[in-house]
Amino acid sequence: MIDFATRVIEGTRALGPLCVGIDPHPGRVPALFGGDTAQGAQNWGLALIELCKGKVCAIKPQVGLFERFGPEGFAALQTIARAGRDAGLVVLMDAKRGDIGSTAEGYAQAYLSAEAPFPSDALTVNPYLGLDTLEPFFRVARENQKGVIVLARTSNPGAADFQARAMGDAPLYLRVVDALGPAIEAHRSASGWSNIMLVTGATGPAEARKIRMVSPYALFLVPGYGAQGAGAADAVAGFVRGEGGLVSASRSVTFPAAADGTNRAEVWRSAVTDALVAAQNDLRQALNV
Amino acid sequence: MIDFATRVIEGTRALGPLCVGIDPHPGRVPALFGGDTAQGAQNWGLALIELCKGKVCAIKPQVGLFERFGPEGFAALQTIARAGRDAGLVVLMDAKRGDIGSTAEGYAQAYLSAEAPFPSDALTVNPYLGLDTLEPFFRVARENQKGVIVLARTSNPGAADFQARAMGDAPLYLRVVDALGPAIEAHRSASGWSNIMLVTGATGPAEARKIRMVSPYALFLVPGYGAQGAGAADAVAGFVRGEGGLVSASRSVTFPAAADGTNRAEVWRSAVTDALVAAQNDLRQALNV
Repeated sequence: MIDFATRVIEGTRALGPLCVGIDPHPGRVPALFGGDTAQGAQNWGLALIELCKGKVCAIKPQVGLFERFGPEGFAALQTIARAGRDAGLVVLMDAKRGDIGSTAEGYAQAYLSAEAPFPSDALTVNPYLGLDTLEPFFRVARENQKGVIVLARTSNPGAADFQARAMGDAPLYLRVVDALGPAIEAHRSASGWSNIMLVTGATGPAEARKIRMVSPYALFLVPGYGAQGAGAADAVAGFVRGEGGLVSASRSVTFPAAADGTNRAEVWRSAVTDALVAAQNDLRQALNV
Repeated sequence: MIDFATRVIEGTRALGPLCVGIDPHPGRVPALFGGDTAQGAQNWGLALIELCKGKVCAIKPQVGLFERFGPEGFAALQTIARAGRDAGLVVLMDAKRGDIGSTAEGYAQAYLSAEAPFPSDALTVNPYLGLDTLEPFFRVARENQKGVIVLARTSNPGAADFQARAMGDAPLYLRVVDALGPAIEAHRSASGWSNIMLVTGATGPAEARKIRMVSPYALFLVPGYGAQGAGAADAVAGFVRGEGGLVSASRSVTFPAAADGTNRAEVWRSAVTDALVAAQNDLRQALNV
C-alpha cells in the first residue's frame, strides 16, 4: 500500500496539481443527470469521475452539499467515494470535521479506517478545538496510510476575522502550523512529504509563502482558484520546485459555461474536458513545468 | 411557532438545565438494543427519548458517533431527530459544522431548514473560518425560529492550544464571543435571550464567567459535566439568577454503572431514570433552585 503523500506527489508529477471539486451546488446539477436530487448528484459525480480518471490526480467531494439530501445524500457520497478510489483517483473528503477525542474517533472511523463507510484517502479537519482533538485523526490515518488535511488559512474573506489576527508575534494560522510541526515531521513518508497536509487558500499567496517557510514538508491543499477569484500564480505561491500540493477547482471546471443547459451528454463531456485541460495548462504554466 | 431560545428557557425553568447526550460510543450500546450497529444505536436512542420525554428539556445527538455507521447511521440519526422533536424535546444537533458560504448553506439546509432531512432545533458550528461562514447558519435559523450554537471555549484539554491563548489583550475564545456580539443581539427573542448560543465547557468555570460578563444574552451549552470530570457548580458557573443555558451529560446518565451488562429492559430503564434524576438534582442544588 502506498501512503497518501507519496500518491499525491507522484500523481501531481504525472498529471499536474489540479484537484477537481465534486460539489453539487443547489440547482446546478444538469437535468441530464437528474438535477438537484441525491440521485442527480450521484450520476453527475460518477460522470465527472469518468472524465477525471487518468487525467487528474485527485477529486474532492464537498460533504455539506451531499448532506443536505439526508441519508440518500450520504449513500450518493459513499458511491462516489468508492468509484473515485476504484478509478485510481486520490479522494480528499472535504468534511471539515473536528470534535473531542471520542467523537473525533467516530469521524476518523467514518472516513479513514480500513472499513470506512465513506472510503477516503484524506479528510479535512478543523483545528479550533486543539491538538488533542486532531490526534485520533492522525492515529487512524497512520494505521491506514491515509492523510489528514488541517485548515490553516482558508480562502474566504472571513479568514481575516480570527485566522489572520495576531496571537503574540504571529497570526493564528501560523500558530496552528507551528503547533502542528512535530506531527507533520512525525508523519513524513518515504517521499519526504508529510501525510499531514495544510489548507492554505489561493486568495492569500503571501500567507501561503509564510506557511511554506515554517512548514517545508507539508503538502498544501489550495482552495479558491477559479470561481473564488484567485489566478494560477497565486494558487501555486506556496509550491517549491514546481510541486508541493494540490490546487482545487470546482465550479469553474465542473459547471463550465459551454455546458450550460445542454441536454446532450457529449456536449457536457466535451465542455468539462475542455475546462479541465484549460485549468491544467493554466496551472502548469504558472509552475513553469 | 416558538423560537429556540424561548423554548430552551421555558423548558429549563420547568425541568432544569439537563441536556441528555445521545452518544452511541463504540461498544457501549447494550446488546439489549442491538449492540454496536446503526440499528442498535437507533433503538437505544429511541428508548432514551422515551425516558427523557416530559422529564428533561433537551437532547443532543453526537453526529460523529452515527456517521461511523455510514448512510445507515444517518438514517438512524434522522429517526432519532424526528422522534425527539415529536416527543417535545429540544433537539440540539452536535455536528460542529463550518465551511465557506455555499457549503455552509448546504449544512444549514440539512439541519435547520423547514424541510431539513435531520430536523433539529439548533446546530453546533465552529467559528475558525470566520463570521461570513456563520452567516448562512444564522439566516436559515432565523427563517425557521431555530438556534445556532457557536463553539467558544470547549471542555477538552486542547482548548488551551488556541482558544485560551492571548490574541491582543484577550484570549481567542473571548475574541470569538466579542465578534459575535452584534449577531447575538440581532437574534434576541421575546424571551430576552438570543437564538445564538455559545459552547463553554464545564471544565472552565472562570472562562464561563468571563464569557457571561461579555455576553449577557447568550444561552450557554455546557459540555464536560459528569464523565469529563466537572462538577455541577462548575457547570453552572456562567448561569445568572438560576438560569442561562443547558448542561449536557452523556455517558454518566446514558451508560450508568447500574445498567452495565443487563439484558432486562426494566433494569436498564430504572438505572437510566435514576441517573437522570440524580443529575437533575445535582444541578438544581448547584443552582439553588
